[in-house]
Amino acid sequence: MEIEEMVSKILELIKEKKIREIKKELANLEEIDIAEVMNELPLDANLLLVFRLLDKDMSTEIFANLDSEEQEYIINSITYKEISTIIEDLFTDDAVDMLEEMPATVVKRVLKNATPDTRNLINQFLKYPDSSAGSVMTSEFVDLKSNMTVSEAVNHLRKVAKDKETIYTCYVTDKTRILEGVVSIRDMLLANSDDLLKDIMEKDIISAHTLDDQEAVAQDFAKYDLIALPVLDNEERLVGIITIDDIVDVMTEEATEDIMKMNAIVPTEDPYLKTSVFKIAKSRIVWLMILMFTSIISGIILDSFENAISALPFLVVFIPMLMDSGGNAGSQASTTIIRGLATNEITLKDCLKVAWKEIRVALMVGVVLCAFMTLRIIIQYGLINPVEDTVVPIRLVLSVTGAMLATITAAKLVGSLLPMLAKKVHLDPAIVAAPMLTTIVDATALTIFFLLVKLMYQI
Amino acid sequence: MEIEEMVSKILELIKEKKIREIKKELANLEEIDIAEVMNELPLDANLLLVFRLLDKDMSTEIFANLDSEEQEYIINSITYKEISTIIEDLFTDDAVDMLEEMPATVVKRVLKNATPDTRNLINQFLKYPDSSAGSVMTSEFVDLKSNMTVSEAVNHLRKVAKDKETIYTCYVTDKTRILEGVVSIRDMLLANSDDLLKDIMEKDIISAHTLDDQEAVAQDFAKYDLIALPVLDNEERLVGIITIDDIVDVMTEEATEDIMKMNAIVPTEDPYLKTSVFKIAKSRIVWLMILMFTSIISGIILDSFENAISALPFLVVFIPMLMDSGGNAGSQASTTIIRGLATNEITLKDCLKVAWKEIRVALMVGVVLCAFMTLRIIIQYGLINPVEDTVVPIRLVLSVTGAMLATITAAKLVGSLLPMLAKKVHLDPAIVAAPMLTTIVDATALTIFFLLVKLMYQI
Repeated sequence: MEIEEMVSKILELIKEKKIREIKKELANLEEIDIAEVMNELPLDANLLLVFRLLDKDMSTEIFANLDSEEQEYIINSITYKEISTIIEDLFTDDAVDMLEEMPATVVKRVLKNATPDTRNLINQFLKYPDSSAGSVMTSEFVDLKSNMTVSEAVNHLRKVAKDKETIYTCYVTDKTRILEGVVSIRDMLLANSDDLLKDIMEKDIISAHTLDDQEAVAQDFAKYDLIALPVLDNEERLVGIITIDDIVDVMTEEATEDIMKMNAIVPTEDPYLKTSVFKIAKSRIVWLMILMFTSIISGIILDSFENAISALPFLVVFIPMLMDSGGNAGSQASTTIIRGLATNEITLKDCLKVAWKEIRVALMVGVVLCAFMTLRIIIQYGLINPVEDTVVPIRLVLSVTGAMLATITAAKLVGSLLPMLAKKVHLDPAIVAAPMLTTIVDATALTIFFLLVKLMYQI
Repeated sequence: MEIEEMVSKILELIKEKKIREIKKELANLEEIDIAEVMNELPLDANLLLVFRLLDKDMSTEIFANLDSEEQEYIINSITYKEISTIIEDLFTDDAVDMLEEMPATVVKRVLKNATPDTRNLINQFLKYPDSSAGSVMTSEFVDLKSNMTVSEAVNHLRKVAKDKETIYTCYVTDKTRILEGVVSIRDMLLANSDDLLKDIMEKDIISAHTLDDQEAVAQDFAKYDLIALPVLDNEERLVGIITIDDIVDVMTEEATEDIMKMNAIVPTEDPYLKTSVFKIAKSRIVWLMILMFTSIISGIILDSFENAISALPFLVVFIPMLMDSGGNAGSQASTTIIRGLATNEITLKDCLKVAWKEIRVALMVGVVLCAFMTLRIIIQYGLINPVEDTVVPIRLVLSVTGAMLATITAAKLVGSLLPMLAKKVHLDPAIVAAPMLTTIVDATALTIFFLLVKLMYQI
């Protein structure tokens, strides 16, 4: 709402050439909000105008928060000197995030205007694989030496604070850049000004390596309540730090990815509203195709019972209920387990505990569902069944409830164990669950139902 | 793994009465890891023994990270004096989290041993509703005055740093506790030591109110890259702060809750492995019952087409495929939109854009699926159909593909718009989607399929 109003206000002011007014409006906004307003502006000279009106102190931070279309447009429109200012000013992680989305020509244009040091650093950071700790770290950390006193360290901090992503946790390294300790501002405040860092620093350090998975890193942040984490290369040298704000983004991204995988979508990081219809269709068609083909299996099973269906066509009425209940029961179990694995609450060695628990849960919910099914059948078909000649439609009740109980149990077991099996063989638990589950559960439901029917009705 | 080994090692050492060895082992662990080890110990005198061996500096922090069974056992086993030490030492948020899980008698035992100030504070905090900003905030913030100089502020910080949850962001309040500004340690480092806080503090403050939803607060943290946020009461007085470590937990919790709701589970915060079978069954049965009854609708629809099924029983083969494809297509759309709404990427005013996008996606994936369906029918039934007498089984193809296209489109539309409608009427988008979707999609698929069949085969 507010953003939209601001966008039209700004466009209005541009039309009226009230430049000073625009500056005043922008001054009232947080940097992130200015970026959001700019993301809604059309990609034309007005965007550039607003960008150039920004306070120099804030413009790089705002630039870092623009969408990539806006970043690309600005990079292509400004002078080499302006590019150089931005790229030197950007934190390495923001620079890398930006360049990863740009076409090669733009990347070239940017790197050409960076200093050799910056260019080397960016090139090195660009090499870290997607979703690795290296891909989310930044190089702007505070680097101290163990023989500094606290007051020397604080003086150093004063000088560099402006250009560092965080100053609250500082890193003590030796001459070869090996990480020796971590010292927080809190530690320094509580120490005497002539204490040596080596005496107050924490030497038991929680760290990550550049190739570690970002999801594992996020779990460490959550577990140890970290606000920053040092990242080491293969030779244990400190190459960067990861800060909590990036981990918050990683957590959102990973949750979205899991949710998409659990619901048969090939995950993408593209924002929905800005992604083309073709790309969205592509991310969805794969699993729809796979699932369509696997559901043919259920069709074939039904086909093999054509005789029973011809003889007793009213049985078909129970198919949706069995399939839906089984599917839901299974996805309840798989959801619980996938999430438990993702948050590290459940581990593979809990496998038997999980199976035993799910069997009991299945029997408990199964019995309740069966009781209501029986009631429903009696209400619908009366105490004396048109097809059968018994007091209650006992054969129908036994077929339906038997199939229901077996389906729910199979669904809960498969739903809970499949994700664990996937993890065991190093597949993503989220991806195998829903689709395979539907197929297995449907096939089980139909087979058991019609086998029971055949047995009960002797056909 | 490591935790399990440590647990058996500790139990072994207890048996051998090697107390000093236990202390040495514990000293090598992070506080959180000690808590994890203790959570795995049996609830007996040994747990108490380990608790009393802990370093006094760390014992409260470790206590705060224990599971509630362990906390309860310890509270019930230690002296009043020890209880009093713990409760005075705990951060308010941790104390409240603990007491919320305890039986009334234990709460009484704890509060009786707290000072009146602490007791009042805890009682006040216990009143904030679940999932509100008040329920995740803590009272241990640094409170400064605007006429302090930077060096006075730093001296004050030195005195209080030990007992504050964060000292990196400090809060400037007036005599009536109204929040006037925020000043970070970074700001103070960059200022001169005789600058007044009122001149360097940030006066545009991002804050929350006690009754704000924790999910909205988490979104602010993510958007503005915060590490702490002040919380105000109705009179705009500062009553607490929320720190990023608690927001990380809120994010995990909210994602889990959404995932559960999307998969027809009544969400609980209880850890799966420690929850009873009955409680798990209870959290799952509700939706299974609702879904079982709604799937009766599909059954009734099938029932009304009994004639068609009797005449052409092979048609039943296509039912699972239509139902499964529709269900999957719908949940893809609903997942995308629910997640987009949760991360604020999609808002209600995008409703038309979303519908138009989903229609095009549906047609695109629908056409591909139909092409493959046609191929499949030709392969299975040959170019000349046993029932029909045409060159291709054209009537079957038209019935199946027509139903498929309509089902996919309906599924995508309903799947995307239902969560938005829910949000519009202030229901949780996650909860309405999956269950209602299945029913609507199944009913649509079956109705259209059999209507087309009747039309094509003139029955």
